[in-house]
Amino acid sequence: MTLQTDNVQRILAIDSALRDRAIKVIPGGMYGHTRVHGGWLPPSFPQYYSRGAGARLWDVDGNEYVDFLCGYGPMIAGYANPEIDAAAKVRQELGDVLDGPTADMIEAAELLVDTVAHADWAVFAKNGTDATSMAVVIARAATGKTKLLKARVAYHGANPWFTPLMSGVTQADRANIIEYDYNDLASVEAAIQEADGDLAAIIATPFRHDGWADQEFADVEFARGIRELATRYGAALILDEVRTGFRLDPRGAWEGIGVRPDLTAFSKALANGYALAAVVGVESFREATTGIYVTGSFWHGSVSLAAAVKTLEILRSPEAVETMVELGTMLGDGLRAQAKEHGWDLVISGPPQMLALRFEHEESAKAGFAFADAAIRRGVILHPWHNMFLSAAHTVNDIERALAATDDAFAELDAVM
Amino acid sequence: MTLQTDNVQRILAIDSALRDRAIKVIPGGMYGHTRVHGGWLPPSFPQYYSRGAGARLWDVDGNEYVDFLCGYGPMIAGYANPEIDAAAKVRQELGDVLDGPTADMIEAAELLVDTVAHADWAVFAKNGTDATSMAVVIARAATGKTKLLKARVAYHGANPWFTPLMSGVTQADRANIIEYDYNDLASVEAAIQEADGDLAAIIATPFRHDGWADQEFADVEFARGIRELATRYGAALILDEVRTGFRLDPRGAWEGIGVRPDLTAFSKALANGYALAAVVGVESFREATTGIYVTGSFWHGSVSLAAAVKTLEILRSPEAVETMVELGTMLGDGLRAQAKEHGWDLVISGPPQMLALRFEHEESAKAGFAFADAAIRRGVILHPWHNMFLSAAHTVNDIERALAATDDAFAELDAVM
Repeated sequence: MTLQTDNVQRILAIDSALRDRAIKVIPGGMYGHTRVHGGWLPPSFPQYYSRGAGARLWDVDGNEYVDFLCGYGPMIAGYANPEIDAAAKVRQELGDVLDGPTADMIEAAELLVDTVAHADWAVFAKNGTDATSMAVVIARAATGKTKLLKARVAYHGANPWFTPLMSGVTQADRANIIEYDYNDLASVEAAIQEADGDLAAIIATPFRHDGWADQEFADVEFARGIRELATRYGAALILDEVRTGFRLDPRGAWEGIGVRPDLTAFSKALANGYALAAVVGVESFREATTGIYVTGSFWHGSVSLAAAVKTLEILRSPEAVETMVELGTMLGDGLRAQAKEHGWDLVISGPPQMLALRFEHEESAKAGFAFADAAIRRGVILHPWHNMFLSAAHTVNDIERALAATDDAFAELDAVM
Repeated sequence: MTLQTDNVQRILAIDSALRDRAIKVIPGGMYGHTRVHGGWLPPSFPQYYSRGAGARLWDVDGNEYVDFLCGYGPMIAGYANPEIDAAAKVRQELGDVLDGPTADMIEAAELLVDTVAHADWAVFAKNGTDATSMAVVIARAATGKTKLLKARVAYHGANPWFTPLMSGVTQADRANIIEYDYNDLASVEAAIQEADGDLAAIIATPFRHDGWADQEFADVEFARGIRELATRYGAALILDEVRTGFRLDPRGAWEGIGVRPDLTAFSKALANGYALAAVVGVESFREATTGIYVTGSFWHGSVSLAAAVKTLEILRSPEAVETMVELGTMLGDGLRAQAKEHGWDLVISGPPQMLALRFEHEESAKAGFAFADAAIRRGVILHPWHNMFLSAAHTVNDIERALAATDDAFAELDAVM
């Protein structure tokens, strides 16, 4: 059976007009992870949004959505969260980027150190890529070694040493990277042999959240194994929590299984959408961190740090993660039940608060695209191949509304089969 | 004669208490270009500020300053500029980082294309380093070549391929960089020979603004020469306007001498302190730009783009640069006259709106530090070894107030000689 999905695209008049304007002044019209064109997302997805509030988004044509992308992670306490925005506004009115930091930087660092179990210190930046890259530089400075082990396919940022596309990337950019397979300790050991005594760091995400694939939890044995190997070979264990930070466990994603990294990279949800990133680390990496030169024009700006303080205060309450788990479970269970009823084999993977969906089907990607297309036309933003995100601002009502829409979306999927 | 400067340090009680708190949770207490300790700035400089308004700053101990650092560049239209902040606030209340960009991104790109003479398109990021690094990736993608020529000492960002400290940096990070000497065309030609047919780009700042040195304008012959060489060898000419953007000439720093780069990196003043960076380029680099993968969690956020639109509207008026030139000239001339009167040989270099000061003295650095220390205790923030920044928010009153203070600072300098 072949999916016929050509009939489902809708026309968004204002969005379409904006795309026509954009293509003239922005290469390709849009770039990076929020672009829609080129098969990145189903055709009915808008490229341009106008506003967000709580867990709802509106596109430029006025359509309202229950959103399960959360800006691809940054939104964790609701779009335009009044409490966080009020704290940020107080700072904004006093000036953001001054000649030096304000006390907000210290408060944010203290709160991170108090929240994240292994954190003895923190430094701040702007992008997730800043944080992962800085962690690697710190590891190299501390160890005096150069090789970095990363999981095959794993995304750790858009710098030349990590970015998934090789256009504009040189061989030298990747010269010190050796790949292993996630959850395969033997492959890590082989990579360490290849590093030949020159191992600076092993970097890993708390679970495998590659696109176009089922999400895969870290085996406890794997997590403990890379911790032990990093220690044995005098290398840093870097946990990349840019995507997972404060959604799994504010104390650190692997705290529940007793595995503590040396360095953790945070960004996305750290300040509920205000541009901020952080590296936190253990005492033994403090001195090396003082010896590297990293900075950015806006890294000491007070507004995002004040927003982070308020965001962390909200996220430290167990209620925040509990809400995300509960509602993500409700969404995942609901989708599974609907799929079964409609005769579709739907795989929901990953932690409930960062669930991903995939159709077991001969045209798996096409089914996912058709389903997400049908859902967005009914007011629900799901992603066909990237993990989704719950937030502490989602409500039972949001999930119910979403599931009512997805039931119709499954019916449409049945019809186009 | 030896400068005795031990007696000049003042105690800032709240600042000092904050430093004690910070050292526990931030490696070294502070990092990067806004740190004060370790000989970076004279001892009387506060590490922590509390607020800014217009061209004035207040430290956490309540001292008020006329500021000539402007947050090291970002502030170009006044701290907490009401007009820009109002535009940003409208967007903040509608949500900042959504699932995709808002129309603000298109407006900002259109305005850049309309303002910067060589710009046919724009892409946005968060750090100046993002912009310079992205420009290099674009150049490599477009040319299929790898080598990058940069001026010796020149700062183009804090990524491993540029950062001034080598701690944590590997040989591979610098493998494709060849250095030339600013304003020395023969050295560029020699570097091109060394690139041996594999030249991707030449990057340059519009004028030489290295720290601890007199600022040096680009010779017209040099600027035209590297433009001609880049074209001849099929490489990109990248202008790094991260520091200079919109302070020299909003059309492009070299527009007045008829030299147009292929790619320009902007950041700092682009949105008056809201975290934003941009690369703009000519048509022939558009396709390569669509083919690279660069992105960041907050790059499509609407608030900084709305701020940029308002900032650019202000800066496009010739009045903005005229004000900065006029007041920077008044400051520089005033300092020169005072120095002469007090018997000091003071060198003021660079464009008036980005002036730098240096004492011709056997203990040049020490004299600069003592002078800046004396000035800040009298309510004026000058920098002893980094270029300073004027803004469109400075007034004649600010300059007069500053010069009254610096006259006293020179008198103190005389006394400690």
